[in-house]
Amino acid sequence: MAKIELHPDRFFDPDSQVRKIARELYEEHKNLPIISPHGHVDPKILAENTPFPDPVELLVIPDHYLFRLLYSQGIPLESLGIPTMDGTEVEKDHRKIWHLVAEHFYLFAGTPTGIWLDYEFKEVFGLDERPDGQNAQRLYDELSEKLSSPEFLPRALFERFNIEVLSTTDGATDALLWHKKIKESGWPSRVIPSFRPDALTRITRPEWMRHLHDLQKVTNRSIHSFKDFLDALRERRQYFKQLGATSTDHGVQSPFTQRLSPDKIEQLFQKALKGQADARDQAAFESHMLMEMAAMSLEDGLVMQIHPGSFRDHNQLIYKRFGSDKGADIPLQTEFTRNLHALLNEFGNEPDMTIIIFTLDETTYSRELAPLAGHYPALRLGPPWWFHDSLQGMLRFKKQVIETASIYNLVGFNDDTRAFPSIPARHDLSRRMDANFLARQVARHVISMDEASHMMRALTYELAKKAYKL
Amino acid sequence: MAKIELHPDRFFDPDSQVRKIARELYEEHKNLPIISPHGHVDPKILAENTPFPDPVELLVIPDHYLFRLLYSQGIPLESLGIPTMDGTEVEKDHRKIWHLVAEHFYLFAGTPTGIWLDYEFKEVFGLDERPDGQNAQRLYDELSEKLSSPEFLPRALFERFNIEVLSTTDGATDALLWHKKIKESGWPSRVIPSFRPDALTRITRPEWMRHLHDLQKVTNRSIHSFKDFLDALRERRQYFKQLGATSTDHGVQSPFTQRLSPDKIEQLFQKALKGQADARDQAAFESHMLMEMAAMSLEDGLVMQIHPGSFRDHNQLIYKRFGSDKGADIPLQTEFTRNLHALLNEFGNEPDMTIIIFTLDETTYSRELAPLAGHYPALRLGPPWWFHDSLQGMLRFKKQVIETASIYNLVGFNDDTRAFPSIPARHDLSRRMDANFLARQVARHVISMDEASHMMRALTYELAKKAYKL
Amino acid sequence: MAKIELHPDRFFDPDSQVRKIARELYEEHKNLPIISPHGHVDPKILAENTPFPDPVELLVIPDHYLFRLLYSQGIPLESLGIPTMDGTEVEKDHRKIWHLVAEHFYLFAGTPTGIWLDYEFKEVFGLDERPDGQNAQRLYDELSEKLSSPEFLPRALFERFNIEVLSTTDGATDALLWHKKIKESGWPSRVIPSFRPDALTRITRPEWMRHLHDLQKVTNRSIHSFKDFLDALRERRQYFKQLGATSTDHGVQSPFTQRLSPDKIEQLFQKALKGQADARDQAAFESHMLMEMAAMSLEDGLVMQIHPGSFRDHNQLIYKRFGSDKGADIPLQTEFTRNLHALLNEFGNEPDMTIIIFTLDETTYSRELAPLAGHYPALRLGPPWWFHDSLQGMLRFKKQVIETASIYNLVGFNDDTRAFPSIPARHDLSRRMDANFLARQVARHVISMDEASHMMRALTYELAKKAYKL
Repeated sequence: MAKIELHPDRFFDPDSQVRKIARELYEEHKNLPIISPHGHVDPKILAENTPFPDPVELLVIPDHYLFRLLYSQGIPLESLGIPTMDGTEVEKDHRKIWHLVAEHFYLFAGTPTGIWLDYEFKEVFGLDERPDGQNAQRLYDELSEKLSSPEFLPRALFERFNIEVLSTTDGATDALLWHKKIKESGWPSRVIPSFRPDALTRITRPEWMRHLHDLQKVTNRSIHSFKDFLDALRERRQYFKQLGATSTDHGVQSPFTQRLSPDKIEQLFQKALKGQADARDQAAFESHMLMEMAAMSLEDGLVMQIHPGSFRDHNQLIYKRFGSDKGADIPLQTEFTRNLHALLNEFGNEPDMTIIIFTLDETTYSRELAPLAGHYPALRLGPPWWFHDSLQGMLRFKKQVIETASIYNLVGFNDDTRAFPSIPARHDLSRRMDANFLARQVARHVISMDEASHMMRALTYELAKKAYKL
Repeated sequence: MAKIELHPDRFFDPDSQVRKIARELYEEHKNLPIISPHGHVDPKILAENTPFPDPVELLVIPDHYLFRLLYSQGIPLESLGIPTMDGTEVEKDHRKIWHLVAEHFYLFAGTPTGIWLDYEFKEVFGLDERPDGQNAQRLYDELSEKLSSPEFLPRALFERFNIEVLSTTDGATDALLWHKKIKESGWPSRVIPSFRPDALTRITRPEWMRHLHDLQKVTNRSIHSFKDFLDALRERRQYFKQLGATSTDHGVQSPFTQRLSPDKIEQLFQKALKGQADARDQAAFESHMLMEMAAMSLEDGLVMQIHPGSFRDHNQLIYKRFGSDKGADIPLQTEFTRNLHALLNEFGNEPDMTIIIFTLDETTYSRELAPLAGHYPALRLGPPWWFHDSLQGMLRFKKQVIETASIYNLVGFNDDTRAFPSIPARHDLSRRMDANFLARQVARHVISMDEASHMMRALTYELAKKAYKL
Repeated sequence: MAKIELHPDRFFDPDSQVRKIARELYEEHKNLPIISPHGHVDPKILAENTPFPDPVELLVIPDHYLFRLLYSQGIPLESLGIPTMDGTEVEKDHRKIWHLVAEHFYLFAGTPTGIWLDYEFKEVFGLDERPDGQNAQRLYDELSEKLSSPEFLPRALFERFNIEVLSTTDGATDALLWHKKIKESGWPSRVIPSFRPDALTRITRPEWMRHLHDLQKVTNRSIHSFKDFLDALRERRQYFKQLGATSTDHGVQSPFTQRLSPDKIEQLFQKALKGQADARDQAAFESHMLMEMAAMSLEDGLVMQIHPGSFRDHNQLIYKRFGSDKGADIPLQTEFTRNLHALLNEFGNEPDMTIIIFTLDETTYSRELAPLAGHYPALRLGPPWWFHDSLQGMLRFKKQVIETASIYNLVGFNDDTRAFPSIPARHDLSRRMDANFLARQVARHVISMDEASHMMRALTYELAKKAYKL
């Protein structure tokens, strides 16, 4: 049995000077409200506000960060209860699944998942021990009991987490019923959608037609031309704005941007309507759509986020059996200097516009992204994304970006999580890493304590709020 | 109001052992003369030796490092007095510009520009405060007064800075009149040119013809063939050598090298003369020209510098309105292993030749550049360039290069600046970072104090002097 | 004269807390037996067990890590006694060579070669001084005397080094006579071969036909079709297994994998047999051969290693005069996400299979390799390779890989050396770096001391043993 020790100075440099300063910066800012401007929490949770069913349903099944590592060590996803696409049976005994996870919990030592779970167990759920083969069933009982109590209802947790605003990520054709329900419930907390039209721009995917059909339905329009398509999207953006959205999000494989001629894009769209678009057409379509989306952002003021460079569903066997988002998305090398040239030349000089770029390719931090963000007024850099949202990943980002772009071209932190109870864990880690990063600079006499304190507040709270117009 | 504190141990690791060793290494070498073998100071400053006009003219308008960051935060370049190409009016009130900069000075916290300016304010100009909205006008007065006094004349500063030799960077057709004037003035300091023929190798640029015309004029030759072209360049190199040049410099987008057949290159040249060269022709021409330049270096002994991988003038709006060098040059991914194959196979084994490679793509440090420099006798690595000439950038370079290439395949430091008063600030930062880097190695018992001291002297002074044949 | 100081805390962070923990972890594990699952020691040394001839023959001539750096500083390989391909005379006086090396020993300060040699001089050979111009001849005498004594015979050293198992790397057509001789000698130590068929897959190389001929000879088969070829390889793998092999190794320029149709691969093979294969054919052939080799590994259980991304023999002058492996192999940018797609989709989900990937491109650590290894059950990551097997290189690897892949998808350490006496030096360095890496995590309260101790044992001993099925 291993006790969970959340040392008050955890993650800070061992050097006593750095640690002292880091602690001071952290203490000063740790209680600021959480701004969560980009993430994947299911709004249904907060709309329904019913108890989380059990520890496995809460912590294992939705968390591909967690089960991908178990899978990499030879544990079948079936034995972890991950549902199959065709409904083939998987493990249903959640106690058995919990036991299996507990036995392999040592795998997470030194990983962000391990760090977040320690925080969740101890701070969110009040457990003292880390799961293992011995204590698994006892912890399952303890957790289950807590989950059924009113203090652990989703909205109670939301309030306890001190979340000022939480943005979800929602398909362009989503009716946003849960968001409406939250709004209508009179619960004063701010949960807003973000407009993600990816499903409508992936014109080679078999499900594209269905999404286009949905778009026609929700807008009550018929779409026969590219102009119809844009008009429908424009209407949807308005709808999202009415429900509080301040941003859009675009997940593309490549950040290539170009403006096609009206004829060319119309041709492409007609080809897609006939189901004849190929991979090259899709790349061209997406590159042009980023330009159109930016143009709409300039009109309607929605902040534009771009998340490029993931090879989705790399493992076909897993994809066919379990679907997407199962830990098999693998980063690709990504190029920004040439790819964003068209977008930035058309929109980058707009001082009232905000384009936030994320990357999974850390080599672009110092080479491309920091120089671009250190020049174009419209460009801001998103925090380290996905695999890089870790101690070392956050440190690499800061070290490679700030000297060229300054912190004022960043947008603070995104938790980007679909695991609701991990939100405070992730923000706490980020705040600790920021405090430590700034403390190192103070201890080296690069910045003063006063500057560090201002920068800490900006990184924790202000930059996110401002960049996302919250 | 923030006092400028130049802590004696600034930039050193907080660890007391490392700091003690770093301080010792730094103290021992901080007063060595400055070797500045590559930079962009305007020789006119030192030829005329008249007072710098005012703080804005000295510190803001020529420094695209500084104003690009202000621009990225939405401050128009017009309001900073950056002159336009078409002469459209820009802010002329330098006190107003100074105030605007002062109000945004917090943006530079933790950036190299901030560090250099602190040094310049305090050490060069004797100010105690950092500019802000309150003290801006007072500091402007103080600075203006100093600039008009004899101790702040360019040559007085040059001597105070303890510069042993300063190399400028000059177009191949430049008559080098300022260099002649300095020489003829009897002032004993060493200010030398460096031969940069880029304008003559960019055969697709509209201004190429003009440069070719200039080449004919300054050499009093007519150029009808590629051979004529090479002969004229050869003659110019001799002229530069007579005025003290020891090096050439080549700014290319890609470091691709290849030797074209005499027929092929002649054809290309004729096509260029007819104004018909396209982008592919230019790439081919440049790749061959690097081979010709290397061949001339083998003959005349000029050290060859290559600065590849910048996408110049990425922002067309800025380029059209304000011209080049306005903070909108963005690095590109760069490849060396294949691209330098031809060059190194023809010249890399020459022990008397020196080819110095720079990069903006840090991913090539450990993967390509250190292994190449750790093998080919003619190859040396230039210091971290441009955006990477920062605390973290210098540290990354050393960490990724020295274990494979050893420090003896490096060439010390280049300040590469066009901001004359930043020279001592940049060398001081570099010396501190070297001292700290070596101190870490001593504290870890990787090298002895004796070795560190020798290495420190090499990095500070000897390597630059030897590599550039000064 | 410089004394060699092997400080007991060398390579640990100077911070006293980190150092204390690192020391504890190191002390606890430093005496574990050496597992050397991949390297290039010549088995003849251990089969014959005769004295090493002299210091130069032992330490200089076989070590291209060492002489490449001397060459980069202008010292001709001829003067270092490196034998030429055509037998042209080179320096024969080994005392003179030793003197030359000793005079330039300062070049290795801060490099892994310097660190390894210090350990070898002091720990393996009991010298107190580092070679220099003064003491060179005395040290030569001392070393020569030791080499002729029984304690310095290869097998005595093997036992002293506490090597539990040593794997060599052997061509597919190698008769493995030295391995047989070792086995038959009754010497109980475990020295095993590894199957490396590269010479048989490089179908454009002039020597390919000779290797194919050898394959026919050693298998007593005639090879007229691709099937014949595969059958012969399958038979050789069996032969290697009988002599203890547990792994194969594949050195390819690109890790691109694809399965060609039976017709297509047969055509390619026939083209190669006619000597008509070109570079594109070779790339296609190798990409398919990786699939075939994986399929055989699935059958016979041999662990598959892939070492991609080296531009071999970059320096043609050196290659023509001295042959391969002369320090002129330069890394190339390498892509894994797309390139390994076919291989991993066919074999990556096999829980009983092990594919170990190495890279010379550190940019792929966090971007591609850690995410891939953190998902696919069959994939493991090899330790930092070649130039990156250094203090900073090992640290970069751990920092960029562990948070995403966890240590349990790594395979511990490979010394990968052809310099037999450097084996304990390299393992000692690796153990120190692991201890220090884990100590940093403990000091930052990321992992507990207990976890660190388990992880240290895994990294030092268990992971290699398990991954390589030893």
